[in-house]
Amino acid sequence: MSIRNQSFCFLFCIFPLLMLSQNRLRDHGVEIGVLQPGQFNALTDVPGVQVGHTTIIQGDDIRTGVTSILPHSGNIFQEKVPAAIYVGNGFGKLAGYTQVKELGNLETPIVLTNTLSVPTAMNAVIGYTLHQPENENVRSVNAVIGETNDGYLSDIRGRHVTEEHVLKAIKNAKSGPVTEGNVGAGTGTICFGFKGGIGTSSRVLPKKSGGYTVGVLVQTNFGGVLQVAGVEVGKKLGHYSNSFKYSPDGSCMMVVLTDAPLDSRNLERLAKRAMLGLSRTGGIASNGSGDYVIAVSTAKACRIPYQSDDPIQLHPTLRNGAMTPLFLATIEATEEAILNSLFAGETMIGRDGHKIEALPKGKVLEMLKEAGKTTP
Amino acid sequence: MSIRNQSFCFLFCIFPLLMLSQNRLRDHGVEIGVLQPGQFNALTDVPGVQVGHTTIIQGDDIRTGVTSILPHSGNIFQEKVPAAIYVGNGFGKLAGYTQVKELGNLETPIVLTNTLSVPTAMNAVIGYTLHQPENENVRSVNAVIGETNDGYLSDIRGRHVTEEHVLKAIKNAKSGPVTEGNVGAGTGTICFGFKGGIGTSSRVLPKKSGGYTVGVLVQTNFGGVLQVAGVEVGKKLGHYSNSFKYSPDGSCMMVVLTDAPLDSRNLERLAKRAMLGLSRTGGIASNGSGDYVIAVSTAKACRIPYQSDDPIQLHPTLRNGAMTPLFLATIEATEEAILNSLFAGETMIGRDGHKIEALPKGKVLEMLKEAGKTTP
Amino acid sequence: MSIRNQSFCFLFCIFPLLMLSQNRLRDHGVEIGVLQPGQFNALTDVPGVQVGHTTIIQGDDIRTGVTSILPHSGNIFQEKVPAAIYVGNGFGKLAGYTQVKELGNLETPIVLTNTLSVPTAMNAVIGYTLHQPENENVRSVNAVIGETNDGYLSDIRGRHVTEEHVLKAIKNAKSGPVTEGNVGAGTGTICFGFKGGIGTSSRVLPKKSGGYTVGVLVQTNFGGVLQVAGVEVGKKLGHYSNSFKYSPDGSCMMVVLTDAPLDSRNLERLAKRAMLGLSRTGGIASNGSGDYVIAVSTAKACRIPYQSDDPIQLHPTLRNGAMTPLFLATIEATEEAILNSLFAGETMIGRDGHKIEALPKGKVLEMLKEAGKTTP
Amino acid sequence: MSIRNQSFCFLFCIFPLLMLSQNRLRDHGVEIGVLQPGQFNALTDVPGVQVGHTTIIQGDDIRTGVTSILPHSGNIFQEKVPAAIYVGNGFGKLAGYTQVKELGNLETPIVLTNTLSVPTAMNAVIGYTLHQPENENVRSVNAVIGETNDGYLSDIRGRHVTEEHVLKAIKNAKSGPVTEGNVGAGTGTICFGFKGGIGTSSRVLPKKSGGYTVGVLVQTNFGGVLQVAGVEVGKKLGHYSNSFKYSPDGSCMMVVLTDAPLDSRNLERLAKRAMLGLSRTGGIASNGSGDYVIAVSTAKACRIPYQSDDPIQLHPTLRNGAMTPLFLATIEATEEAILNSLFAGETMIGRDGHKIEALPKGKVLEMLKEAGKTTP
Repeated sequence: MSIRNQSFCFLFCIFPLLMLSQNRLRDHGVEIGVLQPGQFNALTDVPGVQVGHTTIIQGDDIRTGVTSILPHSGNIFQEKVPAAIYVGNGFGKLAGYTQVKELGNLETPIVLTNTLSVPTAMNAVIGYTLHQPENENVRSVNAVIGETNDGYLSDIRGRHVTEEHVLKAIKNAKSGPVTEGNVGAGTGTICFGFKGGIGTSSRVLPKKSGGYTVGVLVQTNFGGVLQVAGVEVGKKLGHYSNSFKYSPDGSCMMVVLTDAPLDSRNLERLAKRAMLGLSRTGGIASNGSGDYVIAVSTAKACRIPYQSDDPIQLHPTLRNGAMTPLFLATIEATEEAILNSLFAGETMIGRDGHKIEALPKGKVLEMLKEAGKTTP
Repeated sequence: MSIRNQSFCFLFCIFPLLMLSQNRLRDHGVEIGVLQPGQFNALTDVPGVQVGHTTIIQGDDIRTGVTSILPHSGNIFQEKVPAAIYVGNGFGKLAGYTQVKELGNLETPIVLTNTLSVPTAMNAVIGYTLHQPENENVRSVNAVIGETNDGYLSDIRGRHVTEEHVLKAIKNAKSGPVTEGNVGAGTGTICFGFKGGIGTSSRVLPKKSGGYTVGVLVQTNFGGVLQVAGVEVGKKLGHYSNSFKYSPDGSCMMVVLTDAPLDSRNLERLAKRAMLGLSRTGGIASNGSGDYVIAVSTAKACRIPYQSDDPIQLHPTLRNGAMTPLFLATIEATEEAILNSLFAGETMIGRDGHKIEALPKGKVLEMLKEAGKTTP
Repeated sequence: MSIRNQSFCFLFCIFPLLMLSQNRLRDHGVEIGVLQPGQFNALTDVPGVQVGHTTIIQGDDIRTGVTSILPHSGNIFQEKVPAAIYVGNGFGKLAGYTQVKELGNLETPIVLTNTLSVPTAMNAVIGYTLHQPENENVRSVNAVIGETNDGYLSDIRGRHVTEEHVLKAIKNAKSGPVTEGNVGAGTGTICFGFKGGIGTSSRVLPKKSGGYTVGVLVQTNFGGVLQVAGVEVGKKLGHYSNSFKYSPDGSCMMVVLTDAPLDSRNLERLAKRAMLGLSRTGGIASNGSGDYVIAVSTAKACRIPYQSDDPIQLHPTLRNGAMTPLFLATIEATEEAILNSLFAGETMIGRDGHKIEALPKGKVLEMLKEAGKTTP
Repeated sequence: MSIRNQSFCFLFCIFPLLMLSQNRLRDHGVEIGVLQPGQFNALTDVPGVQVGHTTIIQGDDIRTGVTSILPHSGNIFQEKVPAAIYVGNGFGKLAGYTQVKELGNLETPIVLTNTLSVPTAMNAVIGYTLHQPENENVRSVNAVIGETNDGYLSDIRGRHVTEEHVLKAIKNAKSGPVTEGNVGAGTGTICFGFKGGIGTSSRVLPKKSGGYTVGVLVQTNFGGVLQVAGVEVGKKLGHYSNSFKYSPDGSCMMVVLTDAPLDSRNLERLAKRAMLGLSRTGGIASNGSGDYVIAVSTAKACRIPYQSDDPIQLHPTLRNGAMTPLFLATIEATEEAILNSLFAGETMIGRDGHKIEALPKGKVLEMLKEAGKTTP
C-alpha cells in the first residue's frame, strides 16, 4: 500500500466531512441537474453496495491501482444480480462483456484497474470466486473487469498490479463515503488534460417516481472540451482536445447501480444514459476511448440463484413506462461523478517525470460564479 | 379474393385430413429430430394462436398474398406480448424491428407479405389497431410486417396487395390446421429453386422440460443446397445455388411462438435458433436474403398491459438454464416447417410465363427411402 | 400546400438574411463548441446535399409535414452511399434500419414525417425509386423513413400525409439555406415543452483534420431539462419533464451527412455521437422517445454502384485514428441544430385547441447574456 | 511439454499422410457439401496462416492445452488485419470482443485455451506483443483469447496453463497440416458426448467466384444430437442431449480465416455462417454454450498499419453481392472441421477417473455407408 494512501486514510478518518467539503463540486454550491443526491452523494447510497480501493504509488514511475465494487455483500456467484454492459466506444479491454449480454447477469465483484492489468485482475477475481465457501464445484467464472489506460503517468508496461492488490481492494470494500480522486483505479488517470481519477455521485428519485436510488462511480481518463455545470471551462482555458495540447483519447469506466428492480434489457437502456452524462462534461467519446457502462440492479427480489429447483423465476421488474426518471438520475449522477473526479484529483508527477496538473479549481469556481452557477 | 383460394378452401373444408396426408413430410414417415410435434404439427398448436391467409392469384402475373399471425385473440395493443426479432441476414424490409428490440414487446398482429407491399400492410395494421375498441386514443402503433420477394413469379412492382387483403387475412385468422404451400404470403415464393411457400410445424416438450409448445411458421423464399432430413437432395439433383441454375437469394421469414413464459432476452436467444433450423435444410443465408425470426411468448402471465397503475410488473420467466429444450424444439420445428413448405408447394406459372416446378416429391421420397429415412 | 408555408416562402425569398438573423442562435452571438460552421450553417453545407419540405397546415387540426434529404442529386438507387443508423432509443417506427445495418448503404432519399405516416412515405419513396429512369427492373427498395409523433398538435390518427406530399418534398429539395422551425416534418413537433421543429447546423474541420464538412438536420420532438449553451433554461423557467408540466416523451430524428470518406462502421460510430449532442441540450432519451441517427458519407469516391462487373470495390476510407475531429463536429452540430429548431419554432395552436408556445427567446437570451454566453 | 505430445509429434513427422488418412472424415470417402477443400483441408490452406499447439497432459487430472493461430507471420500489432467476432451464444469468456467490434481489426495472435486460463493467455499474449521488436512504445494490447470448458476431464480449477505454455504454442505455430483431436486447446474437450478436440477444414472457391480460400479451425466442446453428413448418428445411438446422457452444454470456438479482401462488416456476416455449419452437425447452441466465431481477412492489401502518416486507407473489399460463395464455403468448412475433430478425438480418461469415449467410428462409418454417404 502506498504511503500516500495511508496518510490519506488517516486524514480521512479524522476529518471526513472537512475533506469532502474541500473536494466536491456540490460543496461549492454547484448543483448538477434537478434531482437530489443521496446521503453520501456516492455509489454507496445504493443500499448494500460496497467500494474498495488499492492505490499503488511506488517509486517514480508507478501510479496505478484497483477499485472494486460489490453490488451486495453475499456470495455474488451464488446470488447473481441482473446486469448489462453498454459500450459507448469500444476501444478498450473490458472483460466479461459477452456473457453479461447473453445471460443478463453479473456473478462477480466488478473490478477496475489499468488496461494491461485486466488479466491479473481476472485471475484474482476468478480465484476469489473459486475459493468462496459454497463455490467448491464452480468451474466457470465470468469476471467483469473494467480498465482505462494510465500509461502516461504510470509504467503500465511493467504490469505492477498483483492479484494481491486486487484481492485487497475487494477485501477493503465498504459502505459509506467513497474516496475520490487519485485513488484505486483512478490513481494515474487523466481527464480533459487535468488529473482525473475516481468520482462518484448519486440521485434519489422522488417517492412518486418510486423513491429508488441510482449511484454512479467513474474512473475518468478521457478528453474533449471540459464543461463544468455547462460552463465551457476547457474553451475558456484554451485547454481542449482540438488544440491538441493533450490527447482526447483515454477512456471512461462508468458503473451504475440501482435498487430499482430492473431486468437486463432496461439496465442496458439505463447504462446508455451514462454516456449522455459524460457528454455534458464535454466528453466526446474520441476514437481512442474505451467508454463502458456497467449497470446492475441490486434489488433483492431480483437476485438470481446459481442453482434452483424451480425453472421459473418470479421477479418484479419496472415497466418500461417507469424508466424515464431513472434515466434522468443516471445522466445527472454520471455528470456529477465525473466532475467530482476532477475536483478531487490532485497534481501528480509520474513516469519519466510526466506531470499532470490538477484542475485549477480556483479559476474554475470563479468562472462558475461569474456564470451564476454557484449558490451561496 | 382469388378463385384459387376459394376452391382451395372448399376442398380444404371437405377433405382436410386427406390433403394434409398428401402434403406433409411426416405423413411419409419422415421424422425430423427427436422431439414430438403437437396435434396439428403447426404454429396453432400453441394455445390461442390464430393464422389467416389471403391468397392473391389474378391474371397471368399476380401471384402474391398475405399471412397473418395473431398471438392471442384479444386486443394485442392493450395486452402486449413479450417479443424479440432476430436478424439472420438483414437484406430485407421487415417493419417494426427497432421498437420490438427496445421495448421487448409486440403490440399488433404479425403480418407477412411481399417486399414492396410492406407499407400497405403497415397501413392496414395501423388502421386495424386504431379502430379497435379501447384504442380510441392510441396515436402510435408499431406494426410488425415481414416480407419476402416474390417478384420472379409475381408482378411485384405493381404492388397489388391492398389494405383489404391484409385486413381479410387478419379477420380470417383461426386456430386449427394451417394451410401450407402456395397460400397467403407464400403464394409466389421460391425455395431452393423449387416452389416454396408457407410451412409450419411444432414441438411439444416432455413434461420434465416444462411441457411447453413451440410452434413455427415460415414463408420460404431462399436458396442453398437442399437437404431433406439430412439427405443431400439438391446435390443429387444437381440443383443448387452454386451451380447458378437459380439464385440462392431471396429470404425466409420465420415466426416462432411459444407458451413458455419468456422475456425478450430469452426470446431473442430462441429466435436465433431458428436460423440453425434453416441451416439444416441447406439454407446458407445468402447475401441477398432477408432472414428474420420473430419470437413471441404467448404465456398469459407475461402479458403487458398498455396502461397500468402499477409501475411494477411481476412476470414469471424461465431461467436461462431451462432454455435448452426450447432451443432444440425451435430448431427442429423450423427445419420441418421449411420442408413442409416445399412438400406443400405446387408448380406455378406466373409473371412473364416464369414457371417454378414443385419439389419432385416422388424422387425425393425415393432418395429418403434409400437413405433409410422413411419409416414404414 | 398550406397557406402558411406559401407566405413563409414568400417572405423567405425576399428577406432571407433578415429572417435567419432573427431566428438562429448564432446570430445572437452565441457560439456552440469550438469548431466553425459552414457557409449556411446547415446540412446543405455538405456539397451536393439537398433538403426539401412539405408543410401541411390545414384547418384547425392538421399540423404536420414531410422533410426530404437527398445525399446526392443522382439516382441514389444506382449510386448508393455508405450509411449507418444508430438507435439512441428505439421507441419509434423508423423504416429501413435492418438493411442499412446489414449492407452498410442507403439507396433512397431519406424522408422524415409523422409516426403514423411512415407507410405512406415508404410507398411514395418506393414509387419514386421504381419509376426513376434506369430502375425499370428494380424489384426491391429499402426506403429509409424517420418519424416523430406530432399527435398533440395534429390529428395524427387521420393520417393526412399523402404520397403526393412526400413526392413534393423530394421534388422541392434544394441546396442552400434550409428553412427551420415549423416546417416540413417539424411542423407540429414539440421540444422541451416548447415549439420544436426542424433545425440544422454544420461544422467544417480545419485543414489539418481533413477539412471535411459535417452537416446535421434534426426533427425535434423530445424532452428533458433544456440547456442552451450550457445555461439551465429549463430549470430556471421551472419548465421541465420532471415537474411533469409536459411529457418528456417524443422523439428526435437526427440526420448526419459528411463528405468525409467513411465506411458504414465508422459512420455508425459517428451517428452515436449525435446522441451526445442531444444530451448537451438537456435531452434525456426518455422511455417514450424514438431517437435515431442516420449517418451518410457523400464522398464521391465511396459511392456503391447497384450493378458492377467488378466484384471488388476500392474505396478510400478514413482510418479509425482520424475520426475524433468528426466526432466533435457531429456533437457540436447536433447540439446547435436542436437549439436552432427551438429558436425558429413559433407558437402554434392545433388539434383540439392545443397550444404550444415558442421558446421565450427574449428571456432565454437574457439568461445567456447574464451567463456571459453572448458575444457582442 | 507433455510426453504424449512429443510422441505424437514424433509419429506425425514420420507418417503424416498415414495418420491423416486414418483420422479424417474425407479419407473415408465422405464429402461434406459441394465445394472442394484446399491442399491440407485445413485452416493453413489460407496462405501465410500458421497454427501451433501446446498439449498439456500431466498426471491423472490435467488434460488441457493451448492452440494459437497466426493470421500472418509478421508483427500483427504493427500490421493489423480486418476482423470480426460473432457471438453465437455468449455463455463464455472470450477476451477481446468489444475492441474488435469497435475498430474492426485484430492486433494479436488468436489463442484458444480453457475457460479459466483465459487471463493467463491474455497475459502471455500481451507480454509477447509488448516485447516484439518495434513495439517498444506500445501501451495497449487487445489480446483475443477464445476458450471452452474442459473441466470434466481436466482439473480446470487448478489453472495449470502457464504463460510459457501459451508462448510455446505461438512459437510452435507453423503452416502445413494441422494436428487434430486431443491436442492443444482441444486436449480435454467433449463433443456430442464423445471426445472432441481440434478440427479443421477448408474450401477453395472456383475461379469464377474469386478463387479465394476459406479455412476453419474449431475447438469442439458442445452438444446436441450428432449428425454426420446428415445421418442422425446421435439419434440412432440414443446418445444425445435430450436424453440427458450427457450435458449438451459446453462451447465451440470457431476461427474462420480467408484471403478474400473483406472489411469487418462482411467478416461479421461471414462469421455468422459458421454457426450454420455447427448446426449441420446437430449442434443446438445450448444455454450453457459459449459459441464464438472469429473471422479474419488475411488479404495483404487489407492490412492496417498501426501508425500511418496518411489518414486515408485504400483497401480493396469484396462487394456485398460477391459474398454468397464465401458464406457457403464457411458453412461447409465449419461442418467438416467439427466432424474432423470427432474423427480425430481419442478416448480419454482424466480428472477423477472421468472417461470420455471416442466416437465409435466403425459404427458411424457403417451408418454412413448404409445411408449411401460413402463413396468408394
